[in-house]
Order: sequence, then C-alpha cells, then structure tokens
Amino acid sequence: MRDVCVVGVGLVDFGELWEKPLRRIWTEAALAALEDAGVDTVDLVTIGCMSSGLFTGQEHLASLCVDELGIAGVPAARVESACASGGLAVRTGFAEIASGLSEVVLVTGVEKMTDVDGAEATFALGTAADQEWEGFHGITFPGLYAMLARAHMARYGTTREQLAKVAVKNHANGLLNPHAQYHLKVTVETVLGSTLVADPLRLLDCSPITDGAAALVLASDDWAKAHAKGRPVVKITGSGMATDSISLAQRDDLSELKAVRLAGERAYQMAGRAPKDLHVVEVHDCFTIAEIMATEALGLFEPGGGGPAVERGLTAIGGRVPVNTSGGLKAKGHPVGATGVAQVAEIVSQLRGEAGQRQVQGARFGLAQNMGGSGGSSIVHILEVV
Amino acid sequence: MRDVCVVGVGLVDFGELWEKPLRRIWTEAALAALEDAGVDTVDLVTIGCMSSGLFTGQEHLASLCVDELGIAGVPAARVESACASGGLAVRTGFAEIASGLSEVVLVTGVEKMTDVDGAEATFALGTAADQEWEGFHGITFPGLYAMLARAHMARYGTTREQLAKVAVKNHANGLLNPHAQYHLKVTVETVLGSTLVADPLRLLDCSPITDGAAALVLASDDWAKAHAKGRPVVKITGSGMATDSISLAQRDDLSELKAVRLAGERAYQMAGRAPKDLHVVEVHDCFTIAEIMATEALGLFEPGGGGPAVERGLTAIGGRVPVNTSGGLKAKGHPVGATGVAQVAEIVSQLRGEAGQRQVQGARFGLAQNMGGSGGSSIVHILEVV
Repeated sequence: MRDVCVVGVGLVDFGELWEKPLRRIWTEAALAALEDAGVDTVDLVTIGCMSSGLFTGQEHLASLCVDELGIAGVPAARVESACASGGLAVRTGFAEIASGLSEVVLVTGVEKMTDVDGAEATFALGTAADQEWEGFHGITFPGLYAMLARAHMARYGTTREQLAKVAVKNHANGLLNPHAQYHLKVTVETVLGSTLVADPLRLLDCSPITDGAAALVLASDDWAKAHAKGRPVVKITGSGMATDSISLAQRDDLSELKAVRLAGERAYQMAGRAPKDLHVVEVHDCFTIAEIMATEALGLFEPGGGGPAVERGLTAIGGRVPVNTSGGLKAKGHPVGATGVAQVAEIVSQLRGEAGQRQVQGARFGLAQNMGGSGGSSIVHILEVV
Repeated sequence: MRDVCVVGVGLVDFGELWEKPLRRIWTEAALAALEDAGVDTVDLVTIGCMSSGLFTGQEHLASLCVDELGIAGVPAARVESACASGGLAVRTGFAEIASGLSEVVLVTGVEKMTDVDGAEATFALGTAADQEWEGFHGITFPGLYAMLARAHMARYGTTREQLAKVAVKNHANGLLNPHAQYHLKVTVETVLGSTLVADPLRLLDCSPITDGAAALVLASDDWAKAHAKGRPVVKITGSGMATDSISLAQRDDLSELKAVRLAGERAYQMAGRAPKDLHVVEVHDCFTIAEIMATEALGLFEPGGGGPAVERGLTAIGGRVPVNTSGGLKAKGHPVGATGVAQVAEIVSQLRGEAGQRQVQGARFGLAQNMGGSGGSSIVHILEVV
C-alpha cells in the first residue's frame, strides 16, 4: 500500500451563506486547497455530502462541481455516510492514492443547509436516523442525543455542567478560528440558561445549521516529498471505519459509541499508535454529549472519564490533549458533508504549525473523528508529521 | 496495485416491489451474492444509490443496510453519481482491495423508486440534471435525451427505426433473463406506435421506473484463486471514470457522449485491451439513443455507426459484439443505483459461462458501461476470465 499525504487545505468561512449556491461554496473551498497545494490538475475528486437532494434538490454533485470548477472530464465521486460523509470522502481519496489508481486527489465536503426552512432541514437531517423505526415516530436528532446523554449521566454520573463546559471550551476555541460560524464567548451560565431543546440538551449544547465547504489535496508520499518546498509533510497513517446499528433501540449499550470505538481501534492499529501519542484531536461534537462520548470511545479517557476531563481542562488548548481546537462543530459550524474534511484540515494546520492563535505547540500526531447519525457510522483518521 | 476479482454475484428480480422496503430488497441481493461467493464475512460494504433521500426519505444507507444484514460494525460506504452510482460502488470497492485496505468487499447497488408517485419520481430523477440551468426550466430526462437523439439524427442520419430496433433487441434479450422487469416481445411497430414522450422518443424508447438491488463480492486475486473451487476466476482488469459538463448547454458536441469516451479510454488503457477484444458488453441504455451513442463512444463502432450496427444485428446475441444481453435498462429495468452493479453481474455471469439461454459462447472479455444523468458522468469496467 502506498503512503498518502495531505498537501493542501482550503475552507470557506462557515455560516449562513444565502447569497451563494452550493456549487459556488464548493468551488471556493476547492480553489483554496488547490492554491495551498500549488497544483492545478488532479486525477480524481471526491465530494462528501449528506443530502444535497433534500437540502437543494440537486444530486449528481460529482458532475456538477467539477464542471463549475472548470475541470469537467476529471473523474469525480460523491460519497455519503450522513454527517460522516466528509470523513468518507477522505477515506475514498486515501484508497485511490494508496492503490496507485491516482497520484493527486482533491478531497472535498460540502453542505448547503439554509436553502430550506427549519422544518425541512430537520426532516433532511432526520434521514440520518432509521426512518421506519425512529423518524416515523417523531424523534429528531436532539431527542436521540438527549437519550444518549441521559444514559451516560445515569451510568457514569456525567453532569449537566460538564456538558456545558464542552460548549464553553469549543466556543472559546472558535473565537480563535477565522473560518468559524460563531465568534462569541459562552459561559456555563449562558449554556444552562439557553432554551431547552430536548431535556437535558439546551440550545447551546447543539451544533448549528450551517452552509460550508472544506477541501484537501491528497497526494502520494513520493509526490508530496518532491513538492514540499520546505513545508512540513503530513501523512495519513491510519484510516478506520465502522458502523453500528442505525437505531438506538437496537443497541446493547447507549452509554458507548461503539462505531467510534471500532473505527478508532482500526485507525490506531493501522498507524501503530495509541491514544496517549496524540497531541491534538478533532471529534464530532454535534452535541456536547457527543464530544464527551467520543473522547471516551477513542480511548483518550476511560469510560465515564470524558465529563471530568473537560471539567478539569484536560481537553482545552494547553491541556493534556486539546480537543476541537477549531471550535468543533459547536462553534465552527456543522455543514454536515463538509465537517469531516474540515476536521482533517484543522489537524493538518496544527501539524504544519499553521494554526495561528489556536496552535498546539509541538503537535506532531493528530486524530480526526467524524460520525454519522447518532453513531450509526464513524470514520477516524490519524495524521503525523514526517 | 493488487489485482481484484469478482467472486460472487446476486440480484433480486427487478420490478415494482411495493411489498418490500429498500433495506429488504438490498439484503436479498446481498445475501445472494454472499452465498454465491461462499463467504459470510466481508471487510467493507459499498452501496451505490442515487437518491434514497428523495425516493424514500432515508439517507445514511451504509449504517441502515449493514445493520439489516446483521453485520453492524463492518465499515460501509454509500456512493452516488446519479444513475452511475452502481458503477461508482464497483470502483470504490475495487480501489479498497487494490490498495490492500480490504481483502473481501461486498459491492452493492439499490434503488426503491415506487414509494413515491410519478411526479415525485420525475423530480427525483431530474436532480441528476443541472437543477439551476435545466431542471428549473422544466426539462426532464426524456427531454434531454430527445435533444441528444435529435442531434445524433441530424449529424449522422440515425433513423427512428434504428432507435426502435434497440428496444426490440433488448426486450428480446430480457425474455431470456429471469431477473428482468419485463418479459415481453416488442416489435418495431409496437415501439413506433407507443405513446410519444418527448419527440422523437416514445414510451418504448424509455427505461422504466424500477425497484431493485444487485450485489457483487469482490476479492483480491490471491483470495479468489484460493477459493475458486473449480469455477472460472473473473478479474477486473480495467476501471475508468470520467465526468462531462452536467448541462447539455455547456457541451461542445451533443452527438457524442464525451464522459463515456474518456472513461472507456481510461479503462482500455488500464486493461491493455481494445474495443475489438470484447466478446460481450453492457451499456447504459436508459433511452434507446443512449445505447447507440454509448457503443460509439466506447469505440465498438465509428461515430454514426451505432444505428446501422443495431439495424444489421451486430449487437444481438450471436452478432459481432452482443450488447445488453441482460435486456439492458430497457427490459431488465433501471433501479438507478443498482444498475451499474447489475451490469457487472451480467458480464461476470457471461464470462463464467453461467448466463443460461442468453449465454454468449466463448465469452472471455467483457465491458460494463454505466452513466449518470445525460452523460455528466460515466464509469467503465473491463472484466476478463483468467
């Protein structure tokens, strides 16, 4: 298997981008990554997008986007694993280069979520859950994650305040990220005083509806080293994927995210690394409880240790293992198909030492964890400076 | 790059499967392929599906389907390239094994199209076209292909009767395929007398709305040879992908399917084969004109030679190069996400000598061509008996 590196990153500023269509948002991120990598031709394009059909009435994104970029002809593939679509786009590009089928791949993620109203967006997002066993009965994602939170609280004593501190930390990080949707300071009191959405989750426990796109340029190790021009070369050393029962009712244990654990184990094994090696981590904090559960499933903390860890500041910048330095889905925003790509982009920026005010000093090993639905799928990538 | 073989195929009977949900149809095809391959574990699952969001209100198919199959935990990826989604699922599985990331992959395609009414289905299919430049103005797929037909007729003198003869041939083949949606004999007169849909295309020039699923088991060459049990080993020797401008208005030449030509050239180059080597071919005949144009783009005939070829019987079983022995999309049915996988399944059956009454004697080299939208994307695979 050939080694694969990330040689370019590009993001648009996440937000409510009403004035731009999906294809334009996508193209801006793609061009930024291509410019960062210093390339103008690629062998393949991958596009992670959850539901352009329901959000914008447009499928066939592969053809649409490469055409808009002016490179029609180039092979392109859209992939979907709900909110883990971006991670899947990274994996698909990784496999293309690892196999030798491609030398340079543009890996992208995009979602345009604000072209529909709130009810339609809630329905579209709900299609990541089991429609016949969950959606049909009226449950939406805040409700599903509220049940996970209740189970975690009951089993491990995780507190309402610990959840709030995830939001406080991630909004503090988001203040340092120019691409983030929100630049606002949040306190525990603000979170606890925000509107109740699905008990125990409040508005500030939830990631927002976001338009956005992110892009990476992946290349073979040989290509990357030949074109490094003095910049650090960042290699993807581990790629792990897993699924779990899509509906919560079918799971043995609601206090664990099994797909995240399996995907993490597979990525660690491939990379020959352990959780203790990591200097910086991005996890899928679609809700505050998700970050706590993901850090446990990835082995950063013992089961039940995720809440106390955030309370003690272990996951803050400057802490033992900074988590979501980008601001996470919570503050940076969550354009679902773009999220997994943006997570890897953040890790690459950290490992290159280009993360500006939110730089984790000396970061050499990083991990990005992307998740679909209520944990029905997860994709983990481990990256290292070589 | 590791060599990749197809070691199992499975299909459901295509049709209007109102009594079964998507996940059930999918699982039946998956189980058939696993049984054919004699395996009960796989490293990864790929799922080609165009628009489960718009057709069934369900995304996150990766998690949904592997859960239904009882193998939750296994990595799974859904891919989309409109009507070429199935071909993309094959490509994605191919890259996984070629890279060494996986040893055995279940490659599948599925579409459940009859849960919505005709207008909704037409809208969903229309999302394969450019929604802002084509869909918004009212054009649907029969209209787009009617324009391609008119351009081809104007440039090459392709006749209305030649189009009809594609339908006559493919329905004759479909009579021999137990999985086909339609088992009916069609004559040139029946086609010419059928309802006008979009001049010059009539009802019997169009592929139908279909529910269905198809599956393959792919494995590394080493695995395949070790588990052959005396059956012929079929290798995927070429995999080519390409895109083209998604909207017809942006193309230089409406009488050629450029994405098909490019994908074909890439597949031929990788396989070290030429069009003349092929013994059996499946092409994407979503409309009769598409078969004629695809056979030209793949180099089976000169530009403008596709119409005369079908008229002379060159593409019939027993002809120079049998095309769509399965009945094609026209008679076998076109569950869009399943189509590209079913095409490869047909070629594998032919190369194994297991195609029953529609067997092409001595077939050793075959090709499957899948296409998205009005030719905005195409994926071609070349297969050989080793």
